[in-house]
Amino acid sequence: MMEKERTRRQFLSVAGKGMAASLVGVSVSCGQSQPSAGKKQSRFEIRNPKFGIRKKRRFELGLASYTLRNFKLAEALTMTRKVGLKYIALKSFHLPLDSTPAQIRAVAAKVKEAGLELYGGGVIYMNSEAEVNRAFDYAKAAGMKVIIGVPKPELLKLVEKKVKEYDIKVAIHNHGPGDKTYPTPASAYEKIKNLDKRIGLCNDIGHTQRAGVDPSVSVERFADRLLDIHMKDVTEASAKGHGVEAGRGVIDIPRFLRTLIKIKYAGIVSFEYEKDADNPLAGLAESVGYVRGVLAAIS
Amino acid sequence: MMEKERTRRQFLSVAGKGMAASLVGVSVSCGQSQPSAGKKQSRFEIRNPKFGIRKKRRFELGLASYTLRNFKLAEALTMTRKVGLKYIALKSFHLPLDSTPAQIRAVAAKVKEAGLELYGGGVIYMNSEAEVNRAFDYAKAAGMKVIIGVPKPELLKLVEKKVKEYDIKVAIHNHGPGDKTYPTPASAYEKIKNLDKRIGLCNDIGHTQRAGVDPSVSVERFADRLLDIHMKDVTEASAKGHGVEAGRGVIDIPRFLRTLIKIKYAGIVSFEYEKDADNPLAGLAESVGYVRGVLAAIS
Repeated sequence: MMEKERTRRQFLSVAGKGMAASLVGVSVSCGQSQPSAGKKQSRFEIRNPKFGIRKKRRFELGLASYTLRNFKLAEALTMTRKVGLKYIALKSFHLPLDSTPAQIRAVAAKVKEAGLELYGGGVIYMNSEAEVNRAFDYAKAAGMKVIIGVPKPELLKLVEKKVKEYDIKVAIHNHGPGDKTYPTPASAYEKIKNLDKRIGLCNDIGHTQRAGVDPSVSVERFADRLLDIHMKDVTEASAKGHGVEAGRGVIDIPRFLRTLIKIKYAGIVSFEYEKDADNPLAGLAESVGYVRGVLAAIS
Repeated sequence: MMEKERTRRQFLSVAGKGMAASLVGVSVSCGQSQPSAGKKQSRFEIRNPKFGIRKKRRFELGLASYTLRNFKLAEALTMTRKVGLKYIALKSFHLPLDSTPAQIRAVAAKVKEAGLELYGGGVIYMNSEAEVNRAFDYAKAAGMKVIIGVPKPELLKLVEKKVKEYDIKVAIHNHGPGDKTYPTPASAYEKIKNLDKRIGLCNDIGHTQRAGVDPSVSVERFADRLLDIHMKDVTEASAKGHGVEAGRGVIDIPRFLRTLIKIKYAGIVSFEYEKDADNPLAGLAESVGYVRGVLAAIS
């Protein structure tokens, strides 16, 4: 949050008031990439820190609460605040899918009281019509803007109908080499490219890399449908790769973040740190620090 | 360590065997900045990642064990390994100054068994001849290469005599606005500039910034005597500033690290995270991650 305030201060110090007014708020919106306002950047403008405002990231950092799956909601919220993240997507451990609307609203209120923003839920598997219907009612009751989901392909038409009805986005999550339906962002994109634009991708860059696909190439290729990101690092670019602290694995995270800035991604980059399930705070903190450090150096 | 291995791999992939042989080992030495081998870098070489080997940092990351002052040695070593740091300077909490040579050697052996390198000790205050003598015997028994110390100015002649006799460096630690002897690196430099070159500075960048001095300017100005660094961030550039996770405070850490690369600093950058004394691991991990992220983006 301090980070954001500083960005805004720098912003106001270099931008005229009119320009500021036209851009404020852009950076916190969740969803698709937005086209650049104004003319194309010159090479000079991209490099010169005095023109940093033109290249500033439009995305925010958040948490996929699967990271804290072995902790109760209250502890998870405390840890999220501890590492300075504001946005959170809850996994069912913290908000069961079969909760009543009143229970869901109570959890949403706790997130808000903690000073966090409940922007999404997931990963939510949808294997039947009933599960699709339940997911949308769940997301609506919680005030979520996006469902990070895995709907069976034959249910995508129903998903599209619900997206139009509820105006809630669905970001399809790729799960790597072992996943027969959506191993890569490309495999998901193929199935949703002709559907409503509010159906897009949650690019899990660990699973993308495990499938042998470069996450930087992948997010740029499908930038028009990029709705959410699971940020992590993995030990190798194969099915055997497993989660590790950001910066200790094989993903080129500086290049990935430069690509997100380049494509003007304006959603959330959510950390999903899968290692150390019973004691994840240090590894999560190191990962968040790493990404902030890269951003500080390239922004 | 993984980081280092990768650097070495990249290195070997771009450098010929002869060139590799002539440079291996440079990056791990502790001590003064080393002049560049070969001709001056062109702007192109500095920017182009294929020539990264020429601009790669020569310093390593480490820990000032004051960070873990409320933990026993064994726990401190475990936490140091957890955040992936290899070099450590022990504070008296972990190795009392009045230890016998046998006790000192036993602690040094434990550090080695943990896979860490005990490169220094401190901060060690030296207020009498006896304390100077003790500090050098202590450092010698521990195999330390550098004493991070605060000798009374009138003892500096004795310190110089001991440096020559023991060939152990002394890095004088600045302690900010409240310190009447060495508030800034400049005030220490003034007192040691005509002494043996093995007497230099440990620039504590938090205290430097708290004294209203830009750490980047400070390390560049006194590069010839820069022997150690206490890496941290602080909430404000005044006496009221206090320690905070790297990246959350007011120090421009990307610029600082770029400066260390520019001046070819070849010692250790040791984290001294003073916040959360009873539960420092998450904040230390975030700080280490932040610095690694910056380095990944600029190296």
